[in-house]
Amino acid sequence: MTDLQAMGERAVSAKYALQKVSAQERDTTLREAAKLLSSQAPKILDANEEDIRAAQESGMHPGMIDRLRLTKERIEAMAEGLCQIAELPHCVGEIMERFERPNGLVIEKKRVPLGVIGIIYESRPNVTADAFGLCFKTGNAVILKGGSDALRSNIAIVEILRSALEQTGMPADALQLIESTDRAAAAALMKMNGYVDVLIPRGGAGLIRSVVENSTVPVIETGTGNCHVYVDKDADLDMAVRIVVNAKTQRIGVCNACESLVIHRDIEAAFLPRLAEALSPSRVELRGDQAVREILPDCTPASEEDYGTEYLDYILSLKTVDSVEEAIAHINKYNTKHSDCIVTQNKETGEKFLGEVDAACVYVNASTRFTDGFEFGFGAEIGISTQKLHARGPMGLRELTSYKYVIHGNGQIRG
Amino acid sequence: MTDLQAMGERAVSAKYALQKVSAQERDTTLREAAKLLSSQAPKILDANEEDIRAAQESGMHPGMIDRLRLTKERIEAMAEGLCQIAELPHCVGEIMERFERPNGLVIEKKRVPLGVIGIIYESRPNVTADAFGLCFKTGNAVILKGGSDALRSNIAIVEILRSALEQTGMPADALQLIESTDRAAAAALMKMNGYVDVLIPRGGAGLIRSVVENSTVPVIETGTGNCHVYVDKDADLDMAVRIVVNAKTQRIGVCNACESLVIHRDIEAAFLPRLAEALSPSRVELRGDQAVREILPDCTPASEEDYGTEYLDYILSLKTVDSVEEAIAHINKYNTKHSDCIVTQNKETGEKFLGEVDAACVYVNASTRFTDGFEFGFGAEIGISTQKLHARGPMGLRELTSYKYVIHGNGQIRG
Repeated sequence: MTDLQAMGERAVSAKYALQKVSAQERDTTLREAAKLLSSQAPKILDANEEDIRAAQESGMHPGMIDRLRLTKERIEAMAEGLCQIAELPHCVGEIMERFERPNGLVIEKKRVPLGVIGIIYESRPNVTADAFGLCFKTGNAVILKGGSDALRSNIAIVEILRSALEQTGMPADALQLIESTDRAAAAALMKMNGYVDVLIPRGGAGLIRSVVENSTVPVIETGTGNCHVYVDKDADLDMAVRIVVNAKTQRIGVCNACESLVIHRDIEAAFLPRLAEALSPSRVELRGDQAVREILPDCTPASEEDYGTEYLDYILSLKTVDSVEEAIAHINKYNTKHSDCIVTQNKETGEKFLGEVDAACVYVNASTRFTDGFEFGFGAEIGISTQKLHARGPMGLRELTSYKYVIHGNGQIRG
Repeated sequence: MTDLQAMGERAVSAKYALQKVSAQERDTTLREAAKLLSSQAPKILDANEEDIRAAQESGMHPGMIDRLRLTKERIEAMAEGLCQIAELPHCVGEIMERFERPNGLVIEKKRVPLGVIGIIYESRPNVTADAFGLCFKTGNAVILKGGSDALRSNIAIVEILRSALEQTGMPADALQLIESTDRAAAAALMKMNGYVDVLIPRGGAGLIRSVVENSTVPVIETGTGNCHVYVDKDADLDMAVRIVVNAKTQRIGVCNACESLVIHRDIEAAFLPRLAEALSPSRVELRGDQAVREILPDCTPASEEDYGTEYLDYILSLKTVDSVEEAIAHINKYNTKHSDCIVTQNKETGEKFLGEVDAACVYVNASTRFTDGFEFGFGAEIGISTQKLHARGPMGLRELTSYKYVIHGNGQIRG
């Protein structure tokens, strides 16, 4: 048996042990974990300092080093996050449906944990506590595989979280970290059918593609967002400017930021100069088609590739269309099924767009930046699903659960 | 572009075209398809005759040939099945949840089709009409890959169903059949991310394993059922005999049949001789552990492998345990997360079993044979899921849908 298989066995044991733990006990553990994170912050900071030093020596980009860096405040935020999760209502155990059959069988559809969740993620070590908190709240065991850059930080955090599990009488193996930095370990995790029920990758497009392509365990694909705003001929142009500026610039490196603008030809001349002016303080590079460039001569020409690109940068592609139908077709061709928006005062056009654009979240007259578990009021978020199976859009606690049918009979047999 | 990619493009176009089709129109098409299947039955029978002849020439097992064979009655049943699907209530378009955020955003969670569903299946050509009916009812486009043995039959059926689509003004590409018998075609279908939203394999364990191992498209794993009945020390033994006989012998080749019996040591001497007698007319081979063989000397010894085997045959493995805890641990180790049952009059023991056995369907005092979309009252069934992602247990129409978040704003931006 490999180390990873042994880890899988322990996770499965922990999964069964967690079935006997009450919701209240899980919340107690989360609060204890928060306390320990705070009180043992120096230990985490020491480990993180080593990660940072190694990253600097290897010449890591300063932006990446910032993502890797923990501070006393960031650790406090991690602890605070666990307390917030403890406050959220529980969903596991709820009876989602109940029906009685003519033969007397009573069938209940009961919400249960997914079981063992594998999470593969990149640099930011705060994901470690966050992912554990959400999975544990919903009664799942979790196996984490973090980025090798953050390994020492992750080991320190996991050690503390596991001691919180032990101190509160929980199975410590409800949380396990793969410490091998070998890529083969991640590859093996993706094949752990029978041990791992679901894999959730969190990170850049490359990581997610690799998990989708190599995993035989069911995956929830998260993240990549080539989000569009379509400014219709019947748009309130002031509102359109506000929405595009917000969706593009409020935070650029996130999956719900706007990457591409689609504009109805009729309002282009009136709209584009105002938009260009509003975007200029953020120095957003515009890449447009012929029609756009006739109005904005400084605009870079857009290639087909631009329309398919998630920039995560101060760049915006622009596409001119003659109708909402053309806008919908363009968006359905290039979007990543994440979040797309129409700005229009025309109710009918809005409904058409909402109905026909294929995305997890479709908006009329609001920024795509709202695609977020907290903004949706879920109180938590493990990621944003861009697939259609199981969960779509922001995933909170319920999306970390499955169900089972519980059937009470009194001797029924099938005729 | 390969033929299969072109097929994928056409399926995606059909998916979008289907968004504009009403539920009523889809039902009309299903009824028209049923009519055409009946009136053009001779065409299907001719094609089927060729398939049968080829199968006989290649020496196919008579049982398999029977599964492949269509008759006028079986075609009538296919047509009747489509009419029944047309009668079922619709779920697509339903608003599953609606909430308003403090900032005024109104968020609706709306049920939508999955999009493009790929179905890979084996010999039985009636699956062709059935799978089309369920997918089309829920607004999905479907790409079918049937067994090569049934290719001529499938081509004839699909041709008729596509003509029903055309005659009722629907996109014919809502149904496409991969006619290549090359295994590479099935392999390519499993990699059609971006075209196919979900793959559902229907068939034997080998087919399902191959799809799970090779697909990069999200899969719903169906079918394999190593189902257990546990006869507790507090069981009503008459009821236990009836349930085991039904679950084992009522139909042996199905995934919800009982393959393994777990017995509490305390009632073994009283129970086993009665069970053996009740099973003897069906000539069920019993394979048991030492304790079982002391009571039933003719019983074959059971190996570890027996406990993990889905026989789909007149064979039953038997395991002795000393407690419900041991029964649960044994079942969780060997089951395929499909259906497991406890027979007991002890309410507490029953609830423990229902809570702790990890399976899609857990029963107290009823045959595992009830795990079925029709028996559950879903009015249809596309398969039985043994994974935890998306759908678990019998899958009806709702399990062929996803959702999208539809958000109405009036200019909200994120602060």
